[in-house]
Amino acid sequence: MSKIVTISREFGSGGRTIGRMAAEKLGVPCYDQELIDKIAEESGLIRAYVEENSENVAGGWLSFTAGRDFYGHSLQDDLTRAQTKVIREIAEKGPCVLIGRCADYILDDREDLLKVFIHASMEKRAERIVHQYGERAEDPFQRLKDKDKKRKAYYQLYTDRRWGDLNNYHLALDSGVLGLEACADIIAQLAR
Amino acid sequence: MSKIVTISREFGSGGRTIGRMAAEKLGVPCYDQELIDKIAEESGLIRAYVEENSENVAGGWLSFTAGRDFYGHSLQDDLTRAQTKVIREIAEKGPCVLIGRCADYILDDREDLLKVFIHASMEKRAERIVHQYGERAEDPFQRLKDKDKKRKAYYQLYTDRRWGDLNNYHLALDSGVLGLEACADIIAQLAR
Repeated sequence: MSKIVTISREFGSGGRTIGRMAAEKLGVPCYDQELIDKIAEESGLIRAYVEENSENVAGGWLSFTAGRDFYGHSLQDDLTRAQTKVIREIAEKGPCVLIGRCADYILDDREDLLKVFIHASMEKRAERIVHQYGERAEDPFQRLKDKDKKRKAYYQLYTDRRWGDLNNYHLALDSGVLGLEACADIIAQLAR
Repeated sequence: MSKIVTISREFGSGGRTIGRMAAEKLGVPCYDQELIDKIAEESGLIRAYVEENSENVAGGWLSFTAGRDFYGHSLQDDLTRAQTKVIREIAEKGPCVLIGRCADYILDDREDLLKVFIHASMEKRAERIVHQYGERAEDPFQRLKDKDKKRKAYYQLYTDRRWGDLNNYHLALDSGVLGLEACADIIAQLAR
């Protein structure tokens, strides 16, 4: 029985692709965009809001804390609750690969977890977002910094842990040096 | 032709053992205590001094900066120079595994490098130092903290980088969760 794999990743590191490749090797489902659909359904929030706010601090700290009602309740609370519920339910179903969305934190009480972090140098990631994702080439470094910052802020706010702190992961891989295929191989090997 | 593997590790994580196992699998030499002998020989410093000061800030920052002559030259400078020279010479000879001593930093300009970091939870490491290394059991947690702190301070002083920052490594492994054998397997696989 294979483990449940969570993939945290720097923007542009190819973590999503690696996750899909590992899931294929393991013959288990991979949840990425599917998570957004499920969280939207569970929370009743629109998909675009979930996509923007389930992993990034969209407009910085202010937007995250804004929009609270008299009891301090906010849309973000609904989102967080739905996200936790959806990810726990998916994990209950059996082995899978989960991309991002603090799944490593949400499932941390499970014994059958393999927590992976994928990173790469700024240069490699800039190359990737320009060539693979078709991002505009004007200033890929700034774009990477912005995305990293938002993901990091979200993770820290949500989990009270430091994003990219290697003590939080069982396995951390530099995809720029090792290559996507080798990363997927290792994950599959360790998850089995 | 296999890569040159550098192993940085938290105290008690089994990184040294993993390095030896990986070297054996690769059929290449592993340098650990041998580094101390070679650095002592090269620098003319006594072995005990090299052992204590080639990886740890022995008595904190003060002892590191103390003992300088009129030109600001110190025993530590001799040690650093010898350490750099010895590690570069060893790497020139061909594929090998190097344990600790900032080899990852000293050899960072090489293309054929695989930089590994081995870590584990405090609980797993405490268990290991008590049972495997025969350390006194009184307060293993304090002992781990002290050793980590010294290694960290040394690395930062010497390299101007943050020790245990995953961006500095191609591969980071939690030996407590994955097991020593699996860690050695992965290193050997990626170094080939």
